[in-house]
Amino acid sequence: MSAYALGWSDADGRPDTGLGGKGVRPAIAMLAAEAVGGTAESGLPGAVAVELVHAFSLAHDDIIDHDERRRHRDALWKAYGVGPALVTGDALLALAVSRLVGFPEAMRYLSAALIELVNGQTADMAFENRPWRGARAVTIDEYTAMVAGKTGSLLGAAAATGACLGGAPELGERMWEVGRDLGVAFQIADDMLGIWGDPHVTGKPVYNDLRRDKKTIPVLAALAADHPAARTLSAMLSDGLSGEDAVRHAARLVEEAGGRAAAQALAERHVTAALAVLDECLPEATELRALCDSLANRIH
Amino acid sequence: MSAYALGWSDADGRPDTGLGGKGVRPAIAMLAAEAVGGTAESGLPGAVAVELVHAFSLAHDDIIDHDERRRHRDALWKAYGVGPALVTGDALLALAVSRLVGFPEAMRYLSAALIELVNGQTADMAFENRPWRGARAVTIDEYTAMVAGKTGSLLGAAAATGACLGGAPELGERMWEVGRDLGVAFQIADDMLGIWGDPHVTGKPVYNDLRRDKKTIPVLAALAADHPAARTLSAMLSDGLSGEDAVRHAARLVEEAGGRAAAQALAERHVTAALAVLDECLPEATELRALCDSLANRIH
Repeated sequence: MSAYALGWSDADGRPDTGLGGKGVRPAIAMLAAEAVGGTAESGLPGAVAVELVHAFSLAHDDIIDHDERRRHRDALWKAYGVGPALVTGDALLALAVSRLVGFPEAMRYLSAALIELVNGQTADMAFENRPWRGARAVTIDEYTAMVAGKTGSLLGAAAATGACLGGAPELGERMWEVGRDLGVAFQIADDMLGIWGDPHVTGKPVYNDLRRDKKTIPVLAALAADHPAARTLSAMLSDGLSGEDAVRHAARLVEEAGGRAAAQALAERHVTAALAVLDECLPEATELRALCDSLANRIH
Repeated sequence: MSAYALGWSDADGRPDTGLGGKGVRPAIAMLAAEAVGGTAESGLPGAVAVELVHAFSLAHDDIIDHDERRRHRDALWKAYGVGPALVTGDALLALAVSRLVGFPEAMRYLSAALIELVNGQTADMAFENRPWRGARAVTIDEYTAMVAGKTGSLLGAAAATGACLGGAPELGERMWEVGRDLGVAFQIADDMLGIWGDPHVTGKPVYNDLRRDKKTIPVLAALAADHPAARTLSAMLSDGLSGEDAVRHAARLVEEAGGRAAAQALAERHVTAALAVLDECLPEATELRALCDSLANRIH
């Protein structure tokens, strides 16, 4: 089941390849190790640990969100059942921790990321039950804090463990910041893909997150705008979007109210912040910088 | 939700006390720290970590096993839903890890216990789908290995982290053994309670594990006996126990075939092994020894 979760085999256990994720987190860990003067290999325990935690969080998230599909295949729980998927998630987490047992400085960041990851997941669940408008509506700041936990923390751990393992624990905190900012930008890009992404690329229907009534940054930013489209959108979402026409209309209103542009600008701000720290601490980290740039491209 | 899981509040969040577990694991950690010459307080991070891992495992186990009751109350998932209970379990685990971040030697044992815990849980799930008789039947050795992982590992971590934190990491391995043997004995005692335990004490109906078709040590030992009652029991279990009369009859057959006595003898062997290591390494650990003795009493 772990092999399936990691994209190494199909649901019958037959070896398969190319079904895993993009590997952004392990890439950051290894590039961070190199950037501080270590070898790529020195960052490997961190790279493995963060990828395992990522797989753990996807396995559990899909159970919680009742998501049946993941990376163009059945979600783990859909393929094996809730109980086995739950334990597999636990196993992936246990393996992640075991990977850094010999590296206490790196473990400190992995542990911090786990706490924030769970906090982010909890906030994400709580947001579902909050209204679209009024005093209890989710704010953009609350959303950003949630995303910093849910996605940023693990990219932070990737960068920080890489720095520790590469021989520069004194840069751990700064690299944690870099990773967190990248993570927030990364999640905002994901939020945009969740609405406007090409179904052939994302593996999910277009406007998927709108249809699922999900509170994502483009929508929250649109609702926060002082624009007639924002008011129409707010009324529509509060009533519930029924039918494909309503979903398409809502997506157009998000754009009209400036939600897409605002999300893009927010993502860019976080990438810029990450690059500024990199320029300051590690001006010669060209490959890590290139990875940040490719992320910046993803936003456009 | 964590407070509920730990027995500190009811499902509405009102503070409550006396609803937690017996606290055997944290007691072992603190007594082990004292036994090697440290203060009880020095063992506290280990005590907290193992109790949190225990709470994590109960939260997830009850989801997996569809157990609706725990300690005379609704199980966590029954009180809050599967998703929230799952994340709460993850949070308890994350907190456990964070507690030992500053103690790498102790962390090593916690991490080892997590791996074994998950292996034990996986084996336990796999046993459910195995037959009562024939070549694929679960053996007593397989069962003991499963229990060593599922229960023994965490008691092992309690004893070993206590020793490390108390200032004697060189005794970690031996104390791990002590805890594991105690854990196996403890689980076997639990298995006996699961069949013959007083419902007022266990919070579960008498013969509960027989009714649930659970493969526990008294039953496996009975089936392995060369006794007419074993053959009758085997046939009954393979057909499935239907009705209270059948359940009561099966419990009597387990006793007749010697399953209860064999389980008791096996538990005693593990307590004796734990005490032998204690006598060898820490002959003056009177309080830890007293805790082992109270466990031995539980078997009778």
